[in-house]
Amino acid sequence: MAMGTISITTSCTMQLVDITSLVQKAIGSQDISEGVCYLFNPHTTAGLTINEGADPAVKDDILAGLLKIVPLQLAYKHLEGNSPAHIMASLMGAALTVFISNKTVMLGTWQKIFFCEFDGPRSRNIHWRIIPANL
Amino acid sequence: MAMGTISITTSCTMQLVDITSLVQKAIGSQDISEGVCYLFNPHTTAGLTINEGADPAVKDDILAGLLKIVPLQLAYKHLEGNSPAHIMASLMGAALTVFISNKTVMLGTWQKIFFCEFDGPRSRNIHWRIIPANL
Amino acid sequence: MAMGTISITTSCTMQLVDITSLVQKAIGSQDISEGVCYLFNPHTTAGLTINEGADPAVKDDILAGLLKIVPLQLAYKHLEGNSPAHIMASLMGAALTVFISNKTVMLGTWQKIFFCEFDGPRSRNIHWRIIPANL
Repeated sequence: MAMGTISITTSCTMQLVDITSLVQKAIGSQDISEGVCYLFNPHTTAGLTINEGADPAVKDDILAGLLKIVPLQLAYKHLEGNSPAHIMASLMGAALTVFISNKTVMLGTWQKIFFCEFDGPRSRNIHWRIIPANL
Repeated sequence: MAMGTISITTSCTMQLVDITSLVQKAIGSQDISEGVCYLFNPHTTAGLTINEGADPAVKDDILAGLLKIVPLQLAYKHLEGNSPAHIMASLMGAALTVFISNKTVMLGTWQKIFFCEFDGPRSRNIHWRIIPANL
Repeated sequence: MAMGTISITTSCTMQLVDITSLVQKAIGSQDISEGVCYLFNPHTTAGLTINEGADPAVKDDILAGLLKIVPLQLAYKHLEGNSPAHIMASLMGAALTVFISNKTVMLGTWQKIFFCEFDGPRSRNIHWRIIPANL
């Protein structure tokens, strides 16, 4: 099982960062043709999702949608003021599993892997682990 | 690691399709008693979820709920007009991990695995990979 | 592949139960330094999520947020009356994958693993499976 960490820096309060090439770089660093790659986000105001990357408008629309879905002005108890970011984190999820095929992350035609920043800008990490198919 | 693809055709714009028997067929095609099965949806306007399958009303209610949760008439930038479907896809998630016990997909009493169509009808695929327990 | 089940009893209709120490106990019962731990919730009105555990207000805020996000009074078809709980279950998800590092569940500084009860109080189970890194 290979393992490592991807580091990124976000630049806005809310941002979907396409990390596909960074995940591919991690996969490419291993001599594994077929396998499974696990991604884990260790932050509580961020998440991971897979969605369309071809048209950058889609990630803007996902963020706009989340801002309508999650109540921003509720009588939240958490005094840090970022409870909507925590809720968005749980809606997107902290973990993802993707497949490796022919040494490449196996995504659909329009899919990209996104790190979801909900309380930035910050320095963020994504941990990864890979198991090869020929176990 | 065994691997393959399940193909389905959806018949409505929004539809939860019970794919449990197709996942079970994939598992049954392998001589694996215990293990883990990963499912991956390569589409950006669809997702995967596990919920009640005993009463078919539950899947109707999940779709009705999502239509209330996700704003349908926001000033979306993505010109294809299906941004709500992309948002629903991220809310449900693209990947699922289930357990195999006694050659059978190990679900709770009421659980079924659903492919979530949010922009159909279309032909859709779900990729699967299986690792046996006795590695 | 080691496997087992964590049993808990919830005490409210809606409740986020920190199960991190129970997951750690399962991991600690195995002689595995590095690996991957899969968690699976077999219930259809409950889910699993990872979020902040340091300030207990965050879990209250997540539940308050979900009660605003999910429509409570829609004309639901499922006669049991708990369709909002089913929808919350799909929003949180039934499965989680976490990493094991140095015999310990590898979480971010503020992260805890939560069982999400949406239709309690009930007796609930969470199944787990672990694969070691040195396969």
